Amino acid sequence: MNKTKKAVVLLSGGLDSATCLAMAKAQGFAPHALSVRYGQRHSVELEAAQRLAAQMGAEHKIVDMDLRAIGGSALTDDIAVPETREKGIPVTYVPARNTLMLSLALGWAEVLEAADIFIGVNAVDYSGYPDCRPEFIQAFSRLANLATRAAVEGTEYRIHTPLIDMTKAEIIQAGLKLGVDYRQTVSCYQADELGRACGRCDSCHYRAQGFREAGVEDMTRYR
Amino acid sequence: MNKTKKAVVLLSGGLDSATCLAMAKAQGFAPHALSVRYGQRHSVELEAAQRLAAQMGAEHKIVDMDLRAIGGSALTDDIAVPETREKGIPVTYVPARNTLMLSLALGWAEVLEAADIFIGVNAVDYSGYPDCRPEFIQAFSRLANLATRAAVEGTEYRIHTPLIDMTKAEIIQAGLKLGVDYRQTVSCYQADELGRACGRCDSCHYRAQGFREAGVEDMTRYR
Repeated sequence: MNKTKKAVVLLSGGLDSATCLAMAKAQGFAPHALSVRYGQRHSVELEAAQRLAAQMGAEHKIVDMDLRAIGGSALTDDIAVPETREKGIPVTYVPARNTLMLSLALGWAEVLEAADIFIGVNAVDYSGYPDCRPEFIQAFSRLANLATRAAVEGTEYRIHTPLIDMTKAEIIQAGLKLGVDYRQTVSCYQADELGRACGRCDSCHYRAQGFREAGVEDMTRYR
Repeated sequence: MNKTKKAVVLLSGGLDSATCLAMAKAQGFAPHALSVRYGQRHSVELEAAQRLAAQMGAEHKIVDMDLRAIGGSALTDDIAVPETREKGIPVTYVPARNTLMLSLALGWAEVLEAADIFIGVNAVDYSGYPDCRPEFIQAFSRLANLATRAAVEGTEYRIHTPLIDMTKAEIIQAGLKLGVDYRQTVSCYQADELGRACGRCDSCHYRAQGFREAGVEDMTRYR
């Protein structure tokens, strides 16, 4: 029997991860979407993730991991989200977030007997997070192939980062071709309880710029 | 001012991690103990961790991370804990556990501005888990130094594994010299709600053997 290969896809509910999920599916994988309730300010992005996974016919799992206990970020602590571009790595950086997300994805992949993990990191139009860089992904890949029973028994894990070299505009164009419904995605760091964007934070800035440069209508719902 | 350097110490409440905490303290660090409520069968080991941290004057934090959502282990799923030695990696292996624990420790270390992380892994009298091997620790260390804002800004993370080459007997002897109260530790994979050990699982086996070889009384409370 030629079973479709499973892949775990990290899905935050934002524009990048939704596109990444569509790409995993287009590459012929049976996508298993993983979202993490890590103490985000709002749950609208998890609801968006749920809708997106359902639209694309992906299995979906939400795992709880309370990063508020650790704090240290505007996204998990009582630090205001800035509305101007910051120099350097911004306060929305969550300590070790992608390391933790990829580790959970690895754990689930091992249980599913999947060898492929997708993460929608991007090193072009991004906020300067250290855990979005290619050298970080390479180091995680090396770790994954030492960390698990499946690796010891011969599985070779592959961390896929299909967006890593794309501009936001290119991501949007690729996603539209694959039928991604960007109205359902929530990227804003401080969306309201209806999922409407502020239009002012870093994430809104890069997203709006992406739609503009892609030459398509901005499908974001603003408040 | 010559401030004592902080270190994050992973503390499960078992014999190894308790010894590791005592060693971090003996090396002059201000230890910050981190325990994870990951869906263990019982909470007695977390209570043990709490008592041990208090005894040794360490800060203590418990973080929730629901690994039952992923499953795949006798420790987080409805799989029986075996009472005979298994060949290969046993069913008590939790997918990606040490990767996740170290990632949380890294996140907290970054918030605390600590560069040192202690983990009580052991590659001698152990259960054959892949994420206890020196090459895994080296790969994580490499990852930590790419994953974080602090690393980008110059912090050099060190992952300390003081127990890695010690036998269980040597660990016990070292811990006794440092005043570790092994009566407070819970190692059993299926301890009862009073923290009493089964005396039959893998973990009980290696622990009892350790006390025997160390030539000291077995301080484990059995049921």
